[in-house]
Amino acid sequence: MDAKQLRELLEQVRGGNVAVDDALGSLEHLPFEDLGFARVDHHRALRQGIGEVIFGLGKTTEQIVEIFTSLKDAGGPVLATRVTTEAATAILERHPEAVHHVLGRCVTWSDGPVPINGRGKVLVITAGTSDLPVAEEAMVSGRHMGNEMELLSDVGVAGIHRLLEAQDRLRQASVLIVCAGMEGALASVVGGVVRAPVIAVPTSVGYGASLGGLAALLGMLNSCATGVTVVNVDNGFGAAAAASRINH
Amino acid sequence: MDAKQLRELLEQVRGGNVAVDDALGSLEHLPFEDLGFARVDHHRALRQGIGEVIFGLGKTTEQIVEIFTSLKDAGGPVLATRVTTEAATAILERHPEAVHHVLGRCVTWSDGPVPINGRGKVLVITAGTSDLPVAEEAMVSGRHMGNEMELLSDVGVAGIHRLLEAQDRLRQASVLIVCAGMEGALASVVGGVVRAPVIAVPTSVGYGASLGGLAALLGMLNSCATGVTVVNVDNGFGAAAAASRINH
Amino acid sequence: MDAKQLRELLEQVRGGNVAVDDALGSLEHLPFEDLGFARVDHHRALRQGIGEVIFGLGKTTEQIVEIFTSLKDAGGPVLATRVTTEAATAILERHPEAVHHVLGRCVTWSDGPVPINGRGKVLVITAGTSDLPVAEEAMVSGRHMGNEMELLSDVGVAGIHRLLEAQDRLRQASVLIVCAGMEGALASVVGGVVRAPVIAVPTSVGYGASLGGLAALLGMLNSCATGVTVVNVDNGFGAAAAASRINH
Amino acid sequence: MDAKQLRELLEQVRGGNVAVDDALGSLEHLPFEDLGFARVDHHRALRQGIGEVIFGLGKTTEQIVEIFTSLKDAGGPVLATRVTTEAATAILERHPEAVHHVLGRCVTWSDGPVPINGRGKVLVITAGTSDLPVAEEAMVSGRHMGNEMELLSDVGVAGIHRLLEAQDRLRQASVLIVCAGMEGALASVVGGVVRAPVIAVPTSVGYGASLGGLAALLGMLNSCATGVTVVNVDNGFGAAAAASRINH
Amino acid sequence: MDAKQLRELLEQVRGGNVAVDDALGSLEHLPFEDLGFARVDHHRALRQGIGEVIFGLGKTTEQIVEIFTSLKDAGGPVLATRVTTEAATAILERHPEAVHHVLGRCVTWSDGPVPINGRGKVLVITAGTSDLPVAEEAMVSGRHMGNEMELLSDVGVAGIHRLLEAQDRLRQASVLIVCAGMEGALASVVGGVVRAPVIAVPTSVGYGASLGGLAALLGMLNSCATGVTVVNVDNGFGAAAAASRINH
Amino acid sequence: MDAKQLRELLEQVRGGNVAVDDALGSLEHLPFEDLGFARVDHHRALRQGIGEVIFGLGKTTEQIVEIFTSLKDAGGPVLATRVTTEAATAILERHPEAVHHVLGRCVTWSDGPVPINGRGKVLVITAGTSDLPVAEEAMVSGRHMGNEMELLSDVGVAGIHRLLEAQDRLRQASVLIVCAGMEGALASVVGGVVRAPVIAVPTSVGYGASLGGLAALLGMLNSCATGVTVVNVDNGFGAAAAASRINH
Amino acid sequence: MDAKQLRELLEQVRGGNVAVDDALGSLEHLPFEDLGFARVDHHRALRQGIGEVIFGLGKTTEQIVEIFTSLKDAGGPVLATRVTTEAATAILERHPEAVHHVLGRCVTWSDGPVPINGRGKVLVITAGTSDLPVAEEAMVSGRHMGNEMELLSDVGVAGIHRLLEAQDRLRQASVLIVCAGMEGALASVVGGVVRAPVIAVPTSVGYGASLGGLAALLGMLNSCATGVTVVNVDNGFGAAAAASRINH
Amino acid sequence: MDAKQLRELLEQVRGGNVAVDDALGSLEHLPFEDLGFARVDHHRALRQGIGEVIFGLGKTTEQIVEIFTSLKDAGGPVLATRVTTEAATAILERHPEAVHHVLGRCVTWSDGPVPINGRGKVLVITAGTSDLPVAEEAMVSGRHMGNEMELLSDVGVAGIHRLLEAQDRLRQASVLIVCAGMEGALASVVGGVVRAPVIAVPTSVGYGASLGGLAALLGMLNSCATGVTVVNVDNGFGAAAAASRINH
Repeated sequence: MDAKQLRELLEQVRGGNVAVDDALGSLEHLPFEDLGFARVDHHRALRQGIGEVIFGLGKTTEQIVEIFTSLKDAGGPVLATRVTTEAATAILERHPEAVHHVLGRCVTWSDGPVPINGRGKVLVITAGTSDLPVAEEAMVSGRHMGNEMELLSDVGVAGIHRLLEAQDRLRQASVLIVCAGMEGALASVVGGVVRAPVIAVPTSVGYGASLGGLAALLGMLNSCATGVTVVNVDNGFGAAAAASRINH
Repeated sequence: MDAKQLRELLEQVRGGNVAVDDALGSLEHLPFEDLGFARVDHHRALRQGIGEVIFGLGKTTEQIVEIFTSLKDAGGPVLATRVTTEAATAILERHPEAVHHVLGRCVTWSDGPVPINGRGKVLVITAGTSDLPVAEEAMVSGRHMGNEMELLSDVGVAGIHRLLEAQDRLRQASVLIVCAGMEGALASVVGGVVRAPVIAVPTSVGYGASLGGLAALLGMLNSCATGVTVVNVDNGFGAAAAASRINH
Repeated sequence: MDAKQLRELLEQVRGGNVAVDDALGSLEHLPFEDLGFARVDHHRALRQGIGEVIFGLGKTTEQIVEIFTSLKDAGGPVLATRVTTEAATAILERHPEAVHHVLGRCVTWSDGPVPINGRGKVLVITAGTSDLPVAEEAMVSGRHMGNEMELLSDVGVAGIHRLLEAQDRLRQASVLIVCAGMEGALASVVGGVVRAPVIAVPTSVGYGASLGGLAALLGMLNSCATGVTVVNVDNGFGAAAAASRINH
Repeated sequence: MDAKQLRELLEQVRGGNVAVDDALGSLEHLPFEDLGFARVDHHRALRQGIGEVIFGLGKTTEQIVEIFTSLKDAGGPVLATRVTTEAATAILERHPEAVHHVLGRCVTWSDGPVPINGRGKVLVITAGTSDLPVAEEAMVSGRHMGNEMELLSDVGVAGIHRLLEAQDRLRQASVLIVCAGMEGALASVVGGVVRAPVIAVPTSVGYGASLGGLAALLGMLNSCATGVTVVNVDNGFGAAAAASRINH
Repeated sequence: MDAKQLRELLEQVRGGNVAVDDALGSLEHLPFEDLGFARVDHHRALRQGIGEVIFGLGKTTEQIVEIFTSLKDAGGPVLATRVTTEAATAILERHPEAVHHVLGRCVTWSDGPVPINGRGKVLVITAGTSDLPVAEEAMVSGRHMGNEMELLSDVGVAGIHRLLEAQDRLRQASVLIVCAGMEGALASVVGGVVRAPVIAVPTSVGYGASLGGLAALLGMLNSCATGVTVVNVDNGFGAAAAASRINH
Repeated sequence: MDAKQLRELLEQVRGGNVAVDDALGSLEHLPFEDLGFARVDHHRALRQGIGEVIFGLGKTTEQIVEIFTSLKDAGGPVLATRVTTEAATAILERHPEAVHHVLGRCVTWSDGPVPINGRGKVLVITAGTSDLPVAEEAMVSGRHMGNEMELLSDVGVAGIHRLLEAQDRLRQASVLIVCAGMEGALASVVGGVVRAPVIAVPTSVGYGASLGGLAALLGMLNSCATGVTVVNVDNGFGAAAAASRINH
Repeated sequence: MDAKQLRELLEQVRGGNVAVDDALGSLEHLPFEDLGFARVDHHRALRQGIGEVIFGLGKTTEQIVEIFTSLKDAGGPVLATRVTTEAATAILERHPEAVHHVLGRCVTWSDGPVPINGRGKVLVITAGTSDLPVAEEAMVSGRHMGNEMELLSDVGVAGIHRLLEAQDRLRQASVLIVCAGMEGALASVVGGVVRAPVIAVPTSVGYGASLGGLAALLGMLNSCATGVTVVNVDNGFGAAAAASRINH
Repeated sequence: MDAKQLRELLEQVRGGNVAVDDALGSLEHLPFEDLGFARVDHHRALRQGIGEVIFGLGKTTEQIVEIFTSLKDAGGPVLATRVTTEAATAILERHPEAVHHVLGRCVTWSDGPVPINGRGKVLVITAGTSDLPVAEEAMVSGRHMGNEMELLSDVGVAGIHRLLEAQDRLRQASVLIVCAGMEGALASVVGGVVRAPVIAVPTSVGYGASLGGLAALLGMLNSCATGVTVVNVDNGFGAAAAASRINH
């Protein structure tokens, strides 16, 4: 309901074409569905370009299944992230055509392949093999939002030649997502090589002074390469959402 | 020196058109100038889309002036951030045509207005008046990189109507930079309203439990709005650089 | 034993109506019951307006059941928070008429419904579905202390219209308890909309840089909205106790 | 502009009594004044019960004076907190009838004494002499919002008899604000003695492991006394604002 | 081997009463037994007044049993702290006369009751029931070192009268150990009431902002009561050892 | 006013020897002097064994001088710690016979030498020359409380022979105070050598990862030597107060 | 491919001995094997002196076995660290001649004993028995890299004579690795005794304020002994790798 | 005094060639000079290979000058680090032949050039110009200890080609010291390129989330390159000392 629609509505009211109570209804109607424990935001795609996504952490299996169903009934596509095996199983029992992405801990459903409407390719890069679950969450999420996604894995800075060899692929991407734990240095090196936006995802890979990914997070926030922005630790979905906004 | 150029060079070597030592020179020649204490990276614009920028913190006035001069002699445009009043004065003594942006602590020089070549408009938003220096750094930096910049200030969430009134301006921007200190909640609200990418800049505005901006930083990293990415505390320049990459 | 009672006691001693040893006893008698491992404070309701509550964390099942019984024998009502399923089962075996609030991890007992004697309504708000356990602890605790409680869930700031639609309910509450994890921004927005006191409860919902709820806690402490006070992470009970003091 | 006013407006539009453009204007008119660098929120008192207050930290003297003048011109009363001596002097030069509260670092102006309309008395308690500046900020702010304020200073827990002697004063207050640095234990003891709400203000008094007030903050958040809520370190104003909401 | 013994040894060497190799042996002989993975320090009691104690954390059951046996064979008494149920069971299988203190997670053995040789009584105080395991570790450890120990539990500051009622017991102790979690305020109040040394033991009782006991630790380090010293979180043994040094 | 005095008072009331109002007065009379901004605790020495001490941090010069005068008028001895040069000068202007201990930032006054009544000698040890100010604060404070004090400086663990050479002096002390910054390892080594209680004072000597003394504080709290207790960073006074309690 | 090889290649191209496409191939060929999820760096030994090592944390058992096999097929020797019992079992099922070092959580394989080619002996020292797993990881890793390794365990500073007795062994080592948890003081004492480089490994042995090894880490970083460098908490492998670089 | 010398001494005592008191003297004589506030360790070079160095932080100018003189009188060479301009001036007034290294904040004195006796070259690398003061401290310190030092500055990872161009110089060094602030990624890249030991020095260059150098410190501790060890923030001296131990 933007200013233009408001003017039209008011003019219809003045012209007697719309009753006051109906106008009130339109002004007050909010585009969400109340499930009691949750208010499902069916119009989020209109507002933010990305539909509501189910963040599974801290929700019961029953809640996840019910929201999943609500979003699917509204036409989808549906994406649930951070789902336990138990919750994923429960979704698939109810919706056998949904897909469980095991490594990335996601479940998706869509009525046919999601059309690709992003401008370019989003390249997801990992420093090491242990960063793959986060990268997979980004891959699945980005694809769900209509982007072409590509993966380049295990090119950490301790063997800088592995990264430099792939410079062409880096430069062809329209957005880059860099997943790295430990010291997170890969984002700075990538940021220094390409012109496109770089989204850094610190991962919780590491131990001791990695502080559960905070060391990588701090490193990425202090990147000496310009044009690098950062999301929360292990937040592959968030990186994909930001990349998708850029890519659309 | 990409693969295509390498092939050409090698073919010229084979054809005898280029001597081995010259080819070696080409392969070894690096596009930076060695000032002794600094290696000025003149080709960074080619590589990253943004020329080298002088980060003034921790450099002596003499070093800043010398690098500024080197970059100006190379044709510019030149941007120095985080410059003290003393350093700004010294630059302007040497280069009177440079401009000192007092609030944003920047000095710029260019040979005529920098052409605007970004796709859309970058909107810089502040939660409060105290966030203006960081916003100004972003405004100056973004303009230096060829973007149209616009400012919307003092629309913090404690008076949410001030922000909602400006929704049209929010929606017209191609990238948004949100500067907020204290709890940094503004980024989440903005992220929930627009479809474009949002870059959150935590500022050090606050006291006590704001921990010099870390509270805002943590809040922004945990934003419940998708598509929000974050840069370092007070890093107006970094936000502008990322916005510029997105906007080009 | 306040100053007035002391004067009366002393006058009774002077008048010979009370023996010295009895007066000593009165002066020394303390209103708690010694269970050996615990001193149950039966007069706390007189002193603080809220009777002693059993905080289950770190106590053995046997200790919890024994204190529960002691408080019930003293007339109740009884509230135990943070009880494991095992402890709740043990209480209900001994006191089958007690009620186990599963989501909120509480057990209550009272001899008939607790009378409502608070002045107004306490509104408990959650940012998301995952904050419900903390909200439930607040709902149960507040009701136990004689307050009318109401719940408004899943109105986080990423879809600000969901909250604004409920402004009337917000404004009708005499005290508001806001439960939010991640960046905890909801407390600031609510605080900017209402005139009543707002008690913010950071929840441990989140991951990575949420630091187990510390990010939300810091955000709430730095709230740019005036009139917001904060309790410990996940402390639904404490928020209810503070709200009850305000509401009485 | 609430639902009732909206209905009236719409009916006036339908009845032709209000033109569409005027209705648009009413719907779009927002109760703030744009000073360019700040949007002064003149209707905040209507919305939150407390008018906009100038938080001086991070603002220039010129900005503070201009906002002060804007609020005074709108009728006041005006309160500026965290003002430097320089800013206070500048305000008083422009508005000689304003009052500078030196210890509390505040400047106030009102057209005659602010009427007291709070229900009861707000008691501000300090653990030590060094906590007085924070207490004074609370005293001035609370009085500015129409509350009767009273001070009880230097009753820290290392000499518990000093506090217990004042139990009557504690019990007569309708709200209590406890300002304490170091370990901040005073809030717990006070919370255990009274029935009224207790707002704890950690102060930055201390050194070393006090971490600039964080130790007191953490202590207060973990208070074993129920009904204690907490504000940011040194936030005397915020405590007064919360107390005022409770007291009205 | 102190200076006096060294002089005697040297004079015996000079006098020919002791051979060079024997003197070398004496000078080189070190009072520990090498078990391969551990060097058991049999003379620690001579040096520090307290024999070597087995700290169970991080040791395998086999290692614990072997060191326990080595110390028992050397005459004991033996104390093992932080032993798992599995390790305790293994010790008791080998040494059925050893005693497992379940709540305090200790195992002790001595050849008859350890004689009490401390000057006065050590009083162990807990704020709440949940602090009992730490208090028990202190009780057992202190008794093992020859001190008379006494327990006063559940006298936290939220009900200050429970503590004040026990002032006589507090004042009769020669050393006081205060075990408290959450905000740890009890140590300050006790320190303000007595003249004897107070050793504060922060416990990990709490959640959220208690940070696993760090909040209590910080509070105790910042105690406004003089004469309070602090040991590590949950370190009941360390507090007892310090108390024993003071009491001997 | 202990239990015995209370009985006597009550018997006098009963016998008519004391009027009710006088008894009330006695019961209510509190042994402090109200200076308005401070309540000077003249009976603290009776209660805690150590008279009230002026902690200068955060107090104005005027406040310090007034409290100093109040305590001196009550007979003293008087100790003010953490006094700035300005405050010290102001005290000496008013009380020329007071003594300014420059290195230790203390001012003392007493009517003749304070008598030594402690049982043994308190040895203050420093790891390095930079720890001397903290050690001096301990020396002055301990002497003020009637203890014989001795200093052993610059015996840090990087040259362990310097410490071992002084083992006799270590073993003759009845209490040891170890002042060390950086890693604070000295406390562990001293604790392993002596039988007497060791009080560790972390100092803020260091930089970077010393975190203003927190590294030393953490190290000391984790000391592998038993019997070591810890006070706040740079808290020479607190260590002396604890040592004095032990030594009396 | 260093500068000399590049010259030779270019001269061969010029001489027509190498075709352009072959030269391109040589220049582009990178010495790693792409397993899809990992890029195994077979030439790392040439570049860094130490072959690629499998860091097991965060990798699936299948991934570990596949990389192990790839490295073994390339000739080995192979080292996998931080392997779970499950992964170790899987490796040994596939490669029965591999060795599982249980305490150190490593699996190794080599075709015959790894030749010792380091200059001197690397001495690994532990403060306590609980530090042995980290020390074992260092012992196995160092041996794998061709160093003679020796262990000295349980010589913590609380019994300094145990360390001093071993001074000769300390002084004969060419590099020393000190593994210590809790306060980590051992590194400073060792650093003060020897001339050789000392690598400090903080271990996570401890509890409470040890913060999972951070206290030891901070202590070691602040060591007052010169010549001490530090690796991550529990990083026995990293210490061995650094020691091996020094020793070669 | 090692075991062999002890045997000789004992045999001389037995043979009557050395008197008991002389032997006692030898055994007790310690190689330090007591200046009252400091114990200058004249034999440290014998023990650790590096003579005692004056760490200026926290020492008074007088103390620094006196220790400098003591070490110079003992023959030197002398190095004082972290000296203020005031202290440096005072040293040079007393010892005009001393040298003040302004950028590195050091003062040195030696009787003729310090002979170079290290095995190879130590290469000091900086990521940016702002890291130069720390690098200079390392250069001066390393040279003072007899090492050939070389500097390579401004080769941060945002322009990786600047570093790769210098690979030959990297590979020729026997030890590398990498000084980098912000995210500290340079150490990992260098560690991946060379075979020699790499000592990483985090610098305090940065702001906001750099946390005064802690971000770089954490990054370096988590380096994915093997063989990298770390010293304290800005500890150029410590890195040089470790490098010198390795290089000798």
